[in-house]
Amino acid sequence: MVSETWIQIIGLAAGVCTAVSLLPQLIKIIREKRAEQLSLFYLFTLLLGLGLWTAYGVLRSDLPIILTNIASAALNISVIILSVKYRKPQS
Amino acid sequence: MVSETWIQIIGLAAGVCTAVSLLPQLIKIIREKRAEQLSLFYLFTLLLGLGLWTAYGVLRSDLPIILTNIASAALNISVIILSVKYRKPQS
Repeated sequence: MVSETWIQIIGLAAGVCTAVSLLPQLIKIIREKRAEQLSLFYLFTLLLGLGLWTAYGVLRSDLPIILTNIASAALNISVIILSVKYRKPQS
Repeated sequence: MVSETWIQIIGLAAGVCTAVSLLPQLIKIIREKRAEQLSLFYLFTLLLGLGLWTAYGVLRSDLPIILTNIASAALNISVIILSVKYRKPQS
């Protein structure tokens, strides 16, 4: 039997990984100033999903889900903004 | 008060969105045969996160979390394999 504390820690670790995961992608876009290989359809579907996960977390009163999905969404929006900014036709 | 059924539906919708979101990215990579703008560090951190979310779902006996994170991980692994395959130095 895994204690509630451990479940919370695993949930937070999971959320931190998925939330922070977009950070290297964001840094890569800022450095290379290219992003046309990223699918905007992917990024917007992900954003919708992250919003729904946040709602799910609120309804379940599940703090790891709420906090990490809000962080993910913030990074996702940053990636979307830069992807649109640096979108150029493939030369 | 939102009923348990609705919470499950919102959770499933959230999971379907985040799981399916990688599909257009996968299709884009297959079509364009280019993926060097995708950060592998991003994809591997995401994979670790998805694995931890699956463990969290199992510990919480939360079916939407389990199923959708397994589906996400399968798509993520496909994107990683193709990203490595189609990784070429920027010309």
